[in-house]
Amino acid sequence: MRTHYCGTVRKEDIGKPVTLCGWVDRRRDHGGVIFVDLRDRSGVVQIVGDPERTPEAFQDADALRNEYVVRVSGTVYQRPDDSLNPKLPTGEIEVYADRIEVLNEVHKQLPFQVGTSEVEAVREELRLKYRYLDLRRDRMAQNLKLRHDTIKAIRRFLEDQQNFVEVETPVLTRSTPEGARDYLVPSRVNPGEWFALPQSPQLFKQLLMVSGMDRYYQIARCFRDEDLRADRQPEFTQLDMEMSFMSFDEIIDLNEALVAHIFKTVKGIDLPRPFPRLTYHESMERYGCDRPDTRYGLELVDVSDLMKDSGFKVFSGAIKAGGIVKVLPIPNGNAAISNVRIKPGGDLFKEASEAGAKGLAYIRVKDNGEIDTIGAIKDNLSDDQKAELLSRTQAEPGHLLLFGAGDSETVNKTLDRLRQVIARQMDLIDESQLNLLWITDFPMFEWNADEKRLEALHHPFTAPNPEDLADLKTARALAYDLVLNGNEIGGGSLRIYQREIQEQVFEAIGLSDEEANEKFGFLLNAFDYGTPPHGGIAYGLDRLVMLLAQEDSIRDVIAFPKTQQARCLLTDAPANVDKKQLKELYVSSTFKPKTKE
Amino acid sequence: MRTHYCGTVRKEDIGKPVTLCGWVDRRRDHGGVIFVDLRDRSGVVQIVGDPERTPEAFQDADALRNEYVVRVSGTVYQRPDDSLNPKLPTGEIEVYADRIEVLNEVHKQLPFQVGTSEVEAVREELRLKYRYLDLRRDRMAQNLKLRHDTIKAIRRFLEDQQNFVEVETPVLTRSTPEGARDYLVPSRVNPGEWFALPQSPQLFKQLLMVSGMDRYYQIARCFRDEDLRADRQPEFTQLDMEMSFMSFDEIIDLNEALVAHIFKTVKGIDLPRPFPRLTYHESMERYGCDRPDTRYGLELVDVSDLMKDSGFKVFSGAIKAGGIVKVLPIPNGNAAISNVRIKPGGDLFKEASEAGAKGLAYIRVKDNGEIDTIGAIKDNLSDDQKAELLSRTQAEPGHLLLFGAGDSETVNKTLDRLRQVIARQMDLIDESQLNLLWITDFPMFEWNADEKRLEALHHPFTAPNPEDLADLKTARALAYDLVLNGNEIGGGSLRIYQREIQEQVFEAIGLSDEEANEKFGFLLNAFDYGTPPHGGIAYGLDRLVMLLAQEDSIRDVIAFPKTQQARCLLTDAPANVDKKQLKELYVSSTFKPKTKE
Repeated sequence: MRTHYCGTVRKEDIGKPVTLCGWVDRRRDHGGVIFVDLRDRSGVVQIVGDPERTPEAFQDADALRNEYVVRVSGTVYQRPDDSLNPKLPTGEIEVYADRIEVLNEVHKQLPFQVGTSEVEAVREELRLKYRYLDLRRDRMAQNLKLRHDTIKAIRRFLEDQQNFVEVETPVLTRSTPEGARDYLVPSRVNPGEWFALPQSPQLFKQLLMVSGMDRYYQIARCFRDEDLRADRQPEFTQLDMEMSFMSFDEIIDLNEALVAHIFKTVKGIDLPRPFPRLTYHESMERYGCDRPDTRYGLELVDVSDLMKDSGFKVFSGAIKAGGIVKVLPIPNGNAAISNVRIKPGGDLFKEASEAGAKGLAYIRVKDNGEIDTIGAIKDNLSDDQKAELLSRTQAEPGHLLLFGAGDSETVNKTLDRLRQVIARQMDLIDESQLNLLWITDFPMFEWNADEKRLEALHHPFTAPNPEDLADLKTARALAYDLVLNGNEIGGGSLRIYQREIQEQVFEAIGLSDEEANEKFGFLLNAFDYGTPPHGGIAYGLDRLVMLLAQEDSIRDVIAFPKTQQARCLLTDAPANVDKKQLKELYVSSTFKPKTKE
Repeated sequence: MRTHYCGTVRKEDIGKPVTLCGWVDRRRDHGGVIFVDLRDRSGVVQIVGDPERTPEAFQDADALRNEYVVRVSGTVYQRPDDSLNPKLPTGEIEVYADRIEVLNEVHKQLPFQVGTSEVEAVREELRLKYRYLDLRRDRMAQNLKLRHDTIKAIRRFLEDQQNFVEVETPVLTRSTPEGARDYLVPSRVNPGEWFALPQSPQLFKQLLMVSGMDRYYQIARCFRDEDLRADRQPEFTQLDMEMSFMSFDEIIDLNEALVAHIFKTVKGIDLPRPFPRLTYHESMERYGCDRPDTRYGLELVDVSDLMKDSGFKVFSGAIKAGGIVKVLPIPNGNAAISNVRIKPGGDLFKEASEAGAKGLAYIRVKDNGEIDTIGAIKDNLSDDQKAELLSRTQAEPGHLLLFGAGDSETVNKTLDRLRQVIARQMDLIDESQLNLLWITDFPMFEWNADEKRLEALHHPFTAPNPEDLADLKTARALAYDLVLNGNEIGGGSLRIYQREIQEQVFEAIGLSDEEANEKFGFLLNAFDYGTPPHGGIAYGLDRLVMLLAQEDSIRDVIAFPKTQQARCLLTDAPANVDKKQLKELYVSSTFKPKTKE
């Protein structure tokens, strides 16, 4: 139906007849001559309807409106010197139309403008309801292209350079409610029983290693029925990998090469390698979290030992109760952050209390090196302690020191949050930097206070560090997370491949033998038939593409995303279904909508 | 952990130290020296444990058993002349082990042998339960590799040569029960409402065309809750494509290039192009079905006009009732097929009655050219009719003519079935042939006798032939199916892109305006905003790979398939779930298991 894509016509085509198809991006009437920017996926080209040279095509061009779908036959001409457009790849030429055929019209008013030159901010509900128009807009079209390019780069690297095989694993599978909530699917053929949609292909990929597949990958759709946060979706896409007979360092190395390949291919950026590594312990110490943004300083300093005998009861009390005292030192914080913001009612106080802190103690270092703080702290600091505090926090005149005191979880959570907020507010983040970082040596387990039991920090198939086998409950895991500018983009581990150790881990998380066999018997069985040492990783592809596209929401890199209420505004899913359908599946809804009184 | 893959060690490596990892494929004790075939994904290499040269490694080798996982360090040697194995890529060398490390043992008796040299037939239930062992077997490992290669060839062709963009469409979507039964997923966040798993990404890919994506593809998981036949799975994989601004012939041409590329890349076969085309009408006439196997003849001949006034009431009665009489002429059928097989109780009679026929009339052409048949036929055939019958069916001495009489659907179904059975039995199929064939000009609708309404033969988004718009109900569709040796491997169509025509089609299949808007309102709306002419196709990837692998079941080309009872024997899904999970989802099972009395 066409000879060229719009955006590909060039000077070399001058004099040639062309046929082009696309959308009317813009139509302008310049003193009797009509100019139409015709758009397709490849870009835009200028069509000319001239009343003297081709009166018929001029008439047709005159009747065009934005977003009409048309087919244009014409001839390529050099643009006059005064209308060259160096910003446009097709800016040296224009197409004089001989024939303009309207393939489809626009029958209603567009809910928003979609032309390439449009940058109108449109509210997201409207964009999602008319997603097919939103995806015509340049930004979204570019994002989907970037997503495609990213996945393509991944596939080529893994297939061509690393000998990985892509294997599809089931979407209708078994519920393993260790972890998040499952989406369930009633079985009609086996009434009363349910499939679950996979939270990840974890068990299948491990079984593929048992089957000798050696190196597996998949761009896998995964599902979690969680209450949605800004960067979560009910269904999301994961780059899922698993490999056999590789050491910890070999896996890390291969993954660095992969990530470097992606950045090089998609963004033209050379990432320095190897990526730095930080232990979980060190990351928590210095940043209060296990996915630190290292593009700026503001590192935390533990001063518990200094404060444990302090007369300031907030500090010494916290430590006596098993807690800690840590400092977030802020260079130039004196000038930037007023007391009002730190005290109750202030924005930083609010951030701290949302993280669980009761209040924020602080010290300001004055120009003369003296400290300025509430009496209760000042009165209880000896000169030595003061000097030690300033030395450890490398505080200089102008520094603001924010204190967190309490249980370590709350202190870290509070100071991590303040650190991020303040870095943004004080404009400390170098947006041009790409800081990739491995976090290693995670603990195997963390305490679930609600259920009063240990639970796996990653998942219960993670291998413990062999040095720590004597006490599994406190052991470090052979796990690794990859962090980019404060975002976890991937995480994985070496896996357990011996039945005894897997059984010990199940026991540690409070799974009885019976439950373990009921849920994971097929995996335990597989360990009896020659399971190789293996490990793997999964990348959150939506988030990775979001970061590559410099977007703030993963919804902007997904073609048809769901809202935070887990709805599709385009198709209006989920929806009611026929009673007949439910009857055939032997299920019913137990939901009773509240009637109005 | 290793320097080489097992199957890649070569003569050039002689003298080098190597470290290899894998499974013990076979262990042989040859007069004090132990030979171990070590296997990984790449193949097998011979390891030697020699009691004199490396007594320690010999001891270790002696203790190995089949399927142990080991790591071997040693040196590559030339094999002695009398033990060269030209069948093996590693057949010129062997590795003298210095160190053999057992990474994992086999603790239980293997349910079946898995070594490369094993060809033991194992019943499918056992293979599926121990799928991780089944996939170690050479045949299955090759099948998964072939699947990977096929998908890779598809991606490369579409991305590199044809400018397609891969886009992921939702798995949690809206139920559109036009077609097969949907799998449903209760929504927790929107209680009482349900998602459905997609039977295909049909509507999303059309909307991507509205969004200007131009050329889309996806290797898409699709779901149909059907009662399973041998070649169906609850979830299956589809190569899904859609493209804008392309004519019928352009789409066909691109797809022929794609299929040719797959066969060339994966099997090294050059397919002759263009592929033949057959109209639906002609296919039904000549083969009684719309996916004919054209590797053999046995074409059907309609003789209704000859028989309509016949005194043989079975024939003339059928025609009077609006039916037809057709012949399946079988060269050499006289010798091959006895009367007993055609008459009640015979195997061909049984095939015919399973297809709905009440009986099978027949004529045998004797060596002298005379016909041999029951009196009721012979007595009612004039010499002219007889001559005409033999001429039309090109019958010669030795021919058997099988007759079908009745409504056209039953006659075609019966003779199609007999044609296939007899071709197999008489060994008429040239297995080396790859007959690709387009079927075109399908009718838009077929009559659903149960629901007493027209229904779309493909789906209601298929465009009618513009020549037939005057009477939509009898119109031909701009649809095309691709058939390979009697299997439909792909099907598609140009789509409707105008609201009025889409509404007329919905009306034709008995969908009220209200229902159409409720179900497909978002698509109808999209037609108002500049929808381009577009069309697409979907290939059943499982079936295509099955044919490429020369397997008889799609389960043999799927890593973790379900049984015909829609169960996964490995994980035992579907399964019961916690009451708590169902409560959170506001659903319950209404299934009451029958209690034994």
